[in-house]
Amino acid sequence: MTNIPLSGARLWDSLMEMARIGGTAKGGSNRQTLTDLDSEGRHLLQRWAEAAGCTMQVDRIGNMVLTRPGRDPSRKAVAIGSHLDTQPTGGKFDGVLGVLAGLEILRAVQEAGIETEAPLMLVNWTNEEGARFSPPMMGSGAAMGIFTEAEVLATADSDGKLFGEELTRIGWQGDADPASLQTIGAYFELHIEQGKLLEDAGKQVGVVTQALAQTWYEVTVEGEESHGGSPMAGRHDAMMAAAPLIAAIEEIALNAVAASGEPGRATVGRLTVYPDSRNIAPSRIWFSIDTRHADPDLLAKMGLEIRARATAIAAARGVAITVADFWHSPMVPFDATLVSRVRDAAQRLGLPYMEMPTAIGHDAVYVARRLPATMIFCPCHGGISHNEAESITPEWAEAGLRVMADAVLATAGVAKEQ
Amino acid sequence: MTNIPLSGARLWDSLMEMARIGGTAKGGSNRQTLTDLDSEGRHLLQRWAEAAGCTMQVDRIGNMVLTRPGRDPSRKAVAIGSHLDTQPTGGKFDGVLGVLAGLEILRAVQEAGIETEAPLMLVNWTNEEGARFSPPMMGSGAAMGIFTEAEVLATADSDGKLFGEELTRIGWQGDADPASLQTIGAYFELHIEQGKLLEDAGKQVGVVTQALAQTWYEVTVEGEESHGGSPMAGRHDAMMAAAPLIAAIEEIALNAVAASGEPGRATVGRLTVYPDSRNIAPSRIWFSIDTRHADPDLLAKMGLEIRARATAIAAARGVAITVADFWHSPMVPFDATLVSRVRDAAQRLGLPYMEMPTAIGHDAVYVARRLPATMIFCPCHGGISHNEAESITPEWAEAGLRVMADAVLATAGVAKEQ
Repeated sequence: MTNIPLSGARLWDSLMEMARIGGTAKGGSNRQTLTDLDSEGRHLLQRWAEAAGCTMQVDRIGNMVLTRPGRDPSRKAVAIGSHLDTQPTGGKFDGVLGVLAGLEILRAVQEAGIETEAPLMLVNWTNEEGARFSPPMMGSGAAMGIFTEAEVLATADSDGKLFGEELTRIGWQGDADPASLQTIGAYFELHIEQGKLLEDAGKQVGVVTQALAQTWYEVTVEGEESHGGSPMAGRHDAMMAAAPLIAAIEEIALNAVAASGEPGRATVGRLTVYPDSRNIAPSRIWFSIDTRHADPDLLAKMGLEIRARATAIAAARGVAITVADFWHSPMVPFDATLVSRVRDAAQRLGLPYMEMPTAIGHDAVYVARRLPATMIFCPCHGGISHNEAESITPEWAEAGLRVMADAVLATAGVAKEQ
Repeated sequence: MTNIPLSGARLWDSLMEMARIGGTAKGGSNRQTLTDLDSEGRHLLQRWAEAAGCTMQVDRIGNMVLTRPGRDPSRKAVAIGSHLDTQPTGGKFDGVLGVLAGLEILRAVQEAGIETEAPLMLVNWTNEEGARFSPPMMGSGAAMGIFTEAEVLATADSDGKLFGEELTRIGWQGDADPASLQTIGAYFELHIEQGKLLEDAGKQVGVVTQALAQTWYEVTVEGEESHGGSPMAGRHDAMMAAAPLIAAIEEIALNAVAASGEPGRATVGRLTVYPDSRNIAPSRIWFSIDTRHADPDLLAKMGLEIRARATAIAAARGVAITVADFWHSPMVPFDATLVSRVRDAAQRLGLPYMEMPTAIGHDAVYVARRLPATMIFCPCHGGISHNEAESITPEWAEAGLRVMADAVLATAGVAKEQ
């Protein structure tokens, strides 16, 4: 295998330098998409990548594509990507690690004077976070045809500012067609885990095999308002119907166990109460459900069981319960060849790794719906993410960097070593 | 028993006339306390009561006291009271029925030229509803020494306007001492039930024997934020801890059965979620509990059981749960002699009645903490109240009127009939 002069220290320094753009007092970064700080971060990346021999192209959604040519003009590009935008109280590593690890690979390849067969490409996707403009992963979603360009450009933030206008204002609307990124040959993304499985297991590398299937629901329980003084026998209390249903949702997820032994996941993250008065038994409860599973059939079964339980509770309590589909994301398997290359790289480098799914949306998941893609996870302390306290060690970052470099070069092919 | 020319039709006409002040398109009334409309309603009552031979005194909290003298100067007044203020989307009867039934008794007594031994008094308490200025029952609470005058006058509404300033602005701050109302000899209040026990049982009169004891709590569940994609095994999900606790609260209330066969009552009317995101298992859930029971010991036992369940759930799930006392209202028995007079009146008039507690706060409950008082309930359709759709029949209103008149005259004594 080709050895290139990768520098974990240089990667770490670049992470720290990028983190100062929008750096917060608590040690995080606030570099929300399409802000002046986002633009500043993009310019820094551009300078760094151009110094490493790349040329930049920007598409109409603002996706930054930095390309280092390969020897064989017939080969499709091998891309590395992630995002530089952050949550309002974001950390230094979510997204940024993937982009700057890609940069470090380009720097090392350049420094070594290596020519790859396929072009190497570094992509900074616009608005992965979805914090300012919702939904998340707009840049990769538009490139991969999941969203239309028009709907992305017309999205408004909470101040009513439009994505398209803000993109122009900060000077990052290019003229390339985002769909041209569908011609990428292979895509790699290194990302912090945003969970603590790797840390708990003492592994430095997560070999990500698939994205879990997700189905999100919205539940409305309609009962009858009753005064807190009324006897309970005559009530149709929406809260007292919602509570056992929420408890059942947890039980249903835990019982949906795949052959691998892995259960489902269910989250009730939002809930509203009407009329919201201490002494009135609510007439209406609304709540969200987020369900996920590695096995799409078991995910569907969870949905059926939730609906069945809702029906039973509604009948027993004289309330109406609707369980409406809100959003679905299919199970997305990552490309078996690329997953093998990541696994092989970890083995070759002697780095403790584990195979795992991503249960969280990433740009790689949209990319994988169109073309060969995979992900590598880096541990993060306590699973803390979307938080200024997000932290990783330089050793973990370097482990991910080396595994990705190995897999990327194995995929791109090396035409000429120094 | 003295017969006086009570007119159910005149009572009904007066109810309809008062309802037009602040009348809403949906048939209710919006006559919130200390608004110009409240003032208009008060002036109408004043004109009516003065025409029925009463003189008015207003105290520093705005309580209107309309007195018709008795023969015996040593006798304490027999008072009838309730409130003319409404919820923002209130009905025509909550409070108003009690005041105008009192007025009808005064009118009939006046028309018949009857002299009572004790003075008769009609009280319109300020701000029973608590919708604009919280808490409710401020006028009766201040008169009975439960609140200080100063704290009532300094209360602000949601626009920052002060009770005292608004009372002066609408011209209804008098100079009488509210505490002088503690010299009332006996107090009666006719009120719509705001429940449907009477209607369901086919009874026209509720003989109210006591106010339930109430204890309100605030519960905070503190867990850990987890991404919706994280395995459930490692979570400390505040929502999944709150749900079984809320279900347990219902069960605890239903199992707290008194010797009379009556269980407790529990309501979780407010709940907030933090951080309130579809794909984040909440780190914090806050909710209110309103518990009520006819038996104060069983109410206390309910509290202990709720705390015990909270402790068990917290330990099992690795979350912290605090159950904090928020408010307590003692069990208040109504005066046995007055309750008997109401029961006797219903029997004498051949009106179907039932004995029942009030589980809801009323001015009479504060009055009963200081002096002999009781209540009479009038059925209301479907138990609907605090709602423009609140409705009663003229027959129900007249039944309550006649029972109250009978009990009031039996208490006041009739010195001279026409």
